[in-house]
Amino acid sequence: MDNFIFENRTKVYFGKGCVREFLVCEAKKYGGKVMLAYGGGSVKKNGIYDEIISLLRDADLETVDFPGIMANPTYEKVLEGARLAREENVGLILGVGGGSVMDCCKAISLAAVYDGDIWKDYWARNGVIGFEPLPLGVVVTVTGTGSEMNGGAVITNEALKVKTGRDYPACNPRFALLDPTYTFTVPALQTAAGGFDTLSHIMEIYFSKPDEDNVSDDIAEALMRGVIKNLPAALKDPEDYTARSNLMWLATMAENRVIKLGKRTDFQAHQIEHQLGAYTDCNHGCGLAVITPPYYRRIYEAGICKFVRFATNVWGISTVGKNSAQVAREGIDALEKFIRDIGLPSRLRDIGVAEDAPLDEIAQSCNISPGSYKQLTHEEIAEILKSNY
Amino acid sequence: MDNFIFENRTKVYFGKGCVREFLVCEAKKYGGKVMLAYGGGSVKKNGIYDEIISLLRDADLETVDFPGIMANPTYEKVLEGARLAREENVGLILGVGGGSVMDCCKAISLAAVYDGDIWKDYWARNGVIGFEPLPLGVVVTVTGTGSEMNGGAVITNEALKVKTGRDYPACNPRFALLDPTYTFTVPALQTAAGGFDTLSHIMEIYFSKPDEDNVSDDIAEALMRGVIKNLPAALKDPEDYTARSNLMWLATMAENRVIKLGKRTDFQAHQIEHQLGAYTDCNHGCGLAVITPPYYRRIYEAGICKFVRFATNVWGISTVGKNSAQVAREGIDALEKFIRDIGLPSRLRDIGVAEDAPLDEIAQSCNISPGSYKQLTHEEIAEILKSNY
Repeated sequence: MDNFIFENRTKVYFGKGCVREFLVCEAKKYGGKVMLAYGGGSVKKNGIYDEIISLLRDADLETVDFPGIMANPTYEKVLEGARLAREENVGLILGVGGGSVMDCCKAISLAAVYDGDIWKDYWARNGVIGFEPLPLGVVVTVTGTGSEMNGGAVITNEALKVKTGRDYPACNPRFALLDPTYTFTVPALQTAAGGFDTLSHIMEIYFSKPDEDNVSDDIAEALMRGVIKNLPAALKDPEDYTARSNLMWLATMAENRVIKLGKRTDFQAHQIEHQLGAYTDCNHGCGLAVITPPYYRRIYEAGICKFVRFATNVWGISTVGKNSAQVAREGIDALEKFIRDIGLPSRLRDIGVAEDAPLDEIAQSCNISPGSYKQLTHEEIAEILKSNY
Repeated sequence: MDNFIFENRTKVYFGKGCVREFLVCEAKKYGGKVMLAYGGGSVKKNGIYDEIISLLRDADLETVDFPGIMANPTYEKVLEGARLAREENVGLILGVGGGSVMDCCKAISLAAVYDGDIWKDYWARNGVIGFEPLPLGVVVTVTGTGSEMNGGAVITNEALKVKTGRDYPACNPRFALLDPTYTFTVPALQTAAGGFDTLSHIMEIYFSKPDEDNVSDDIAEALMRGVIKNLPAALKDPEDYTARSNLMWLATMAENRVIKLGKRTDFQAHQIEHQLGAYTDCNHGCGLAVITPPYYRRIYEAGICKFVRFATNVWGISTVGKNSAQVAREGIDALEKFIRDIGLPSRLRDIGVAEDAPLDEIAQSCNISPGSYKQLTHEEIAEILKSNY
């Protein structure tokens, strides 16, 4: 294992009924108003908004609404939230939603108390946060990103056409409420995209050095098998509590830093998807589903031992009578088949990317991951995008 | 998964050189003297004491020594440490050692600032800690207990002949420094006993309800396979950094609460061993090695599905042509063989338990675990002890 430092300050409440049981007790720890931040309104349709607002009001907590956080949350939206938080004397931001809401809220928690330009100082480059962000709590209603137990936030700067993620431990939510029943109404495509995002996080950590035997890789394999088992079950029966609870906790475990410990991590597929998202606003999980198999076909020879492990330990592929390259390719084939089976697309044209999208420009704008087994050129990224249009 | 609440405030520094790099920075966060707490002197022989004391002195930090913490640390020793901490205006307890040192230091961190009797209020029963214990940091030199990243402390009250463990999140160390090279000089028997303690923690969590598919059981299997792979490697080559670092992190992961999430946990074998230790002062890991296989032979039928999973997923035992009971028993046989292979004893007479030890009385004094697949009677515990004398 490589050397590492680990801490995680988020307090997690998990299980059916946890919002009703613990939200008020947590929210009362902070002064000022509670800023209820959410997305496009699904939490109003499914009753979660009403449940939360009545819990807070019954506890005499003042609230202010901040609706309309979009998928691929923009820097503009972050600034809007920060202004509202300052004007309304907000003491706690309560993000209710999935990764987009949580990520946006983390950036707001910084911008609301920082006098400078947080994009310039904290997203355009890694900065040092020498102050305490506005406290943030989250109620997860869509799983996948694992944003609930880390400081990571992916923000899109529309003016610059850049979608960038940073992970600042100071931005970890103070508390996270995870009730699997809240995800029962998530539509199939979003369930599949979120589950694939989780799988992608685990793969991007797993497919990186060091390759000598280490605890994190072993846990990663267990988590990948968990996604592969539980995602189809949740798609088959959206109210399967076992499947939904496993998917919810798998998403958190994939991104609470535990399986990154001692690992370098890759995240090249994410880097490509982020720029694709910045230019085309495509769905994150769907973008990853298109990009990942062709990306792995380009790099597996450079990380052949790990890809063989992936094929055998994660997908149960037999090695009998095959050479390593064959086994590795069968692992990627199995991944591709899984993507099809869960109903995710394999072509950019199927995820709303226009025919005249500037794929060369998108490819040129991508960061190259130093953790990849084989570092791609921008031209190779362009080929991946074009050949999978 | 059952509902759960999770938080863990310990900051972990892991890897070769981490003590030299980070100890002073952490220790300087607290006022007053640093109380250097350790055991029987092995840290003086292997140079770790000298390294730490010179780091602290070079940083102008005043220190006071608290040596002589014994295996199975006593309540008397806790009170002695608390008195010293008060008299010497200690601002940070720095425990340097294995589980006994860390556990003793956690109890001292409470007793040093509590006016009442901590045994009565916090070990004889579960209490509520409404105050901040004296800050504690640890440098791990012997792995196994995983005490470095939880609030657990097992203390022996010699007067009462009771050895009891409690886990108070307030007692989590503020920081833990884990340098795998510090464990290179740990003797083979202690390495094996510590590794088996880790395996036992994982098994005691794994063999409990709920049995429906859950993330924690999947991670537990990965960790068990990790111990089974790395412990023999460390015994073969005590300076195998990969094996030592994996064992070190496996011990922490087994007890930092992650694999307990959503699980009820058993810990019956630990309950028996604790009383055996209270009466006979035997080595903890060795006691577990004697008790565990016969305990599992008594309960496996009540948890047959899980014992079959254990046999197949952890030990790779084939199910072909066998019924469930056979497979389950082969899993326990494999565990027993592993215990022999790593050089641990299988009889009480081999771990220093005297022929006239009051085994009936010891059995009667054991707590009965509500989490076990089949709750033992005190008579059954006595039979386990006697038939394995």
